[in-house]
Amino acid sequence: MSKEGREVNGQASVDLNCDLGESFGHYRLGNDEEIMKWITSCNVACGYHAGDPETMYHSVKLAKQYGVSLGAHPGFPDLMGFGRRELKMSADEVYHMVIYQVGALKAFADVEGVRVKHVKPHGALYNLAAVQPELARAIAEAVRDLDKQLILFALSGSELVKAGRQAGLTVAEEAFADRTYQPDGSLTPRRHPKAVIHDIHAAARQVISMVKDRMVTTVEGTVVPLRADTICVHGDHPGAVSFVSRLRKQLEDEGIVLRPAGDRFG
Amino acid sequence: MSKEGREVNGQASVDLNCDLGESFGHYRLGNDEEIMKWITSCNVACGYHAGDPETMYHSVKLAKQYGVSLGAHPGFPDLMGFGRRELKMSADEVYHMVIYQVGALKAFADVEGVRVKHVKPHGALYNLAAVQPELARAIAEAVRDLDKQLILFALSGSELVKAGRQAGLTVAEEAFADRTYQPDGSLTPRRHPKAVIHDIHAAARQVISMVKDRMVTTVEGTVVPLRADTICVHGDHPGAVSFVSRLRKQLEDEGIVLRPAGDRFG
Amino acid sequence: MSKEGREVNGQASVDLNCDLGESFGHYRLGNDEEIMKWITSCNVACGYHAGDPETMYHSVKLAKQYGVSLGAHPGFPDLMGFGRRELKMSADEVYHMVIYQVGALKAFADVEGVRVKHVKPHGALYNLAAVQPELARAIAEAVRDLDKQLILFALSGSELVKAGRQAGLTVAEEAFADRTYQPDGSLTPRRHPKAVIHDIHAAARQVISMVKDRMVTTVEGTVVPLRADTICVHGDHPGAVSFVSRLRKQLEDEGIVLRPAGDRFG
Amino acid sequence: MSKEGREVNGQASVDLNCDLGESFGHYRLGNDEEIMKWITSCNVACGYHAGDPETMYHSVKLAKQYGVSLGAHPGFPDLMGFGRRELKMSADEVYHMVIYQVGALKAFADVEGVRVKHVKPHGALYNLAAVQPELARAIAEAVRDLDKQLILFALSGSELVKAGRQAGLTVAEEAFADRTYQPDGSLTPRRHPKAVIHDIHAAARQVISMVKDRMVTTVEGTVVPLRADTICVHGDHPGAVSFVSRLRKQLEDEGIVLRPAGDRFG
Repeated sequence: MSKEGREVNGQASVDLNCDLGESFGHYRLGNDEEIMKWITSCNVACGYHAGDPETMYHSVKLAKQYGVSLGAHPGFPDLMGFGRRELKMSADEVYHMVIYQVGALKAFADVEGVRVKHVKPHGALYNLAAVQPELARAIAEAVRDLDKQLILFALSGSELVKAGRQAGLTVAEEAFADRTYQPDGSLTPRRHPKAVIHDIHAAARQVISMVKDRMVTTVEGTVVPLRADTICVHGDHPGAVSFVSRLRKQLEDEGIVLRPAGDRFG
Repeated sequence: MSKEGREVNGQASVDLNCDLGESFGHYRLGNDEEIMKWITSCNVACGYHAGDPETMYHSVKLAKQYGVSLGAHPGFPDLMGFGRRELKMSADEVYHMVIYQVGALKAFADVEGVRVKHVKPHGALYNLAAVQPELARAIAEAVRDLDKQLILFALSGSELVKAGRQAGLTVAEEAFADRTYQPDGSLTPRRHPKAVIHDIHAAARQVISMVKDRMVTTVEGTVVPLRADTICVHGDHPGAVSFVSRLRKQLEDEGIVLRPAGDRFG
Repeated sequence: MSKEGREVNGQASVDLNCDLGESFGHYRLGNDEEIMKWITSCNVACGYHAGDPETMYHSVKLAKQYGVSLGAHPGFPDLMGFGRRELKMSADEVYHMVIYQVGALKAFADVEGVRVKHVKPHGALYNLAAVQPELARAIAEAVRDLDKQLILFALSGSELVKAGRQAGLTVAEEAFADRTYQPDGSLTPRRHPKAVIHDIHAAARQVISMVKDRMVTTVEGTVVPLRADTICVHGDHPGAVSFVSRLRKQLEDEGIVLRPAGDRFG
Repeated sequence: MSKEGREVNGQASVDLNCDLGESFGHYRLGNDEEIMKWITSCNVACGYHAGDPETMYHSVKLAKQYGVSLGAHPGFPDLMGFGRRELKMSADEVYHMVIYQVGALKAFADVEGVRVKHVKPHGALYNLAAVQPELARAIAEAVRDLDKQLILFALSGSELVKAGRQAGLTVAEEAFADRTYQPDGSLTPRRHPKAVIHDIHAAARQVISMVKDRMVTTVEGTVVPLRADTICVHGDHPGAVSFVSRLRKQLEDEGIVLRPAGDRFG
């Protein structure tokens, strides 16, 4: 992505994405409709780690209604573990599993006359793809073979970013509003006491720094470069809607334009 | 379908279809590659009652390799029951479940550069759709909303035939080579001693009569009209390949052209 | 059950039971710990329609901690439908499925040094067993073959009551605090505007009448006999804890002793 | 286990165990009834990586009919991967999952009036438990907490052997008839050209050496000590029955007594 990718008429811009459509059958999760009002991209679960056909359909309709860019959020086939447990699948299995899940979501998009614009792996699949080149390549090639226009969302600076570019895809590097970073640019592990940023102002400052200066202040106080094409926010905790709406407002007050990664790359 | 639908340059023609891609993980079922050599359409399981992403991918590749017309074979989400147990889902649930499954198969077809040409419900879903108008409509509308060009395979004379036409779809009415019929045109229930035709010559005669005369001799010896655009053959028993190859030969000896339903409707 | 079964030293008594342990993986359902404080029996999901090993273990521990009688709550293998969709299984399949699920819960009870005292089928399995003698017999025989001491919870007056007694089991007939009844003693269907009793006082009056007079005032105003050894309350809606705690208090104010069905039959 | 554990009236003895009950719904695997005639212990899948209630019930009946010692074979919840893919579960999750699965099998044993005598983890769970102390401990404690009399089957010399003894369980160390060993006593990885022993005579010689001399000739030709209380044979390939029956005969010709591990420890 060129510098232009992040500017609109000279203005800095960024994408706010959120994982949605994670209900399953009788089980409800998240507050999808409220979150939809504040984000610019959504990542919809595809039935393997969460989500079911009913939920996928309604998620696509909500995304359409609120003008939110639609993405697929494939994960490991582990509903009991919500896709957060590492599963040692072969690269071939991952390749086919991604095609299956993204294809299923595309069908709902086709029915509603919208397009799946991006793919972001979920949970343990996302984490493993950030560090395992072979797994990253399997995902990137599945996305590319399915539709070259799909944008791949990947952890900033990760193996998946490399694999996506290698496969010829447009890649949106992802950063987090509410997670701190280490000096090497990686996320501070969750067990660290300062892993999570709870203060909305601190979170907003971090995002503003990422978007405007392409830098982040690490958990140790140093400042390192970090690319952030899209910012991940969370929708499944009680204060989520308030957090996201306020984050958005603070970014807009700062003159940052909110727009989907899919619109920003052209 | 007009009369032309079943004639090629004045010759009678028919489609031979078979359910394939029913393996799951370590579990192998059927002899897909051998059956592919003799049929003209295949119905590939989509991961709910059978099949997995690996199997779906390889099924699509096989269909492409052997020039067999590709179809989706959605079923109830009941792997333990192989989709053969009735599950009381709402019409909405069925509608979304069909979109999900057909969409997943379309993705593999997209990757391989071929098209999904038809949809045939599986097992208990097929049987219920033959007699329940609401369920039939849910299936027909899912298929139509996903892709108007898809052909719906439905039990000859059933509610699903009506629902498919009502939805504006091309419908291929399906008959069976190895099952007998009752005077009202319905299949003889499996518990009846003469439900299944084991003799290859009798099966061939039945198909020839269906295709050339549009009639079938019932289990009671009477002759009734029956439309057969596509003939279902089975691939999952020991003598399956031999049965299908010999049936095909006898049909060809009779001057009947074998061609996919998808090519015959134009 | 003799009359003595419902009286403690001359006092009327009843059991309050609630379905619990219905969370699955990341998905949380109900407010189990709060409800445990007010009920006398709990029915724990066994992993087929809801529940997982973690949840089952914690449910058994909670039941032990609060002195609540432990029961198994087997259901159809349909997590997506929460066991509420009818699935046409053979009697043999049901028989084995009940053994599997109850056995899994018994293992957690063994580990915690408590006993599974009763079995109550869930959802569509409960409803079908109330009217289908063959299915009812399969459930009753599974329970008996596993442990003759288990008490079978069944809809008052249903086929499952008959099948349980026929199998030699002690049966606790179940009635509902918050559902109205029809003149034939069956539940008013949910689509009926007066199917559900929302008023806590009306619910308490209904239970008191069932327990003290063995009668219920129907939705049409007539009074019919109804046996209620155990009263089902619901734990998965926002006002559940308040409803159950107030119901219990009103019953106790009326001099009714609350005790598990398992203790009352001796 | 004392020396006596492996001798019957001065005769060397060993147990032949095989994984069985791995069918699922419509999918058939293995030739269980034929294998039952030649083995002394069986490990029955419990519905997570393979097996279903029908299959479990029939496996228990077969074991009873042929006098084969019954064991539970718990695995990861990954039917698509047949439990052969590593899944990163917490120790708590593993502990509860083992209780669930063994408990389900115990229920079928109770119904048939037989006992579950041993537990052997399956596939990736077996392999991980051989090298990860924490996972090994979770399995061992689950088995012990459920029933102290259960014998734990574990890879000879592995962490699971240690954890089992630490938990106070009797442990049967397992060796393989058809796999070669490395000088450190571990199995030669499957990718090695000499990993598998196809020759029945070579396999028999290896087992005879293990049982009589407590030594094994490694893939490099050296001889190292190896304890083998139970020998794993495979039942799911075409020549399985022939291999096992001939192996048994050669062991008997050598004067080795075949008896279940459960009978040998007393």
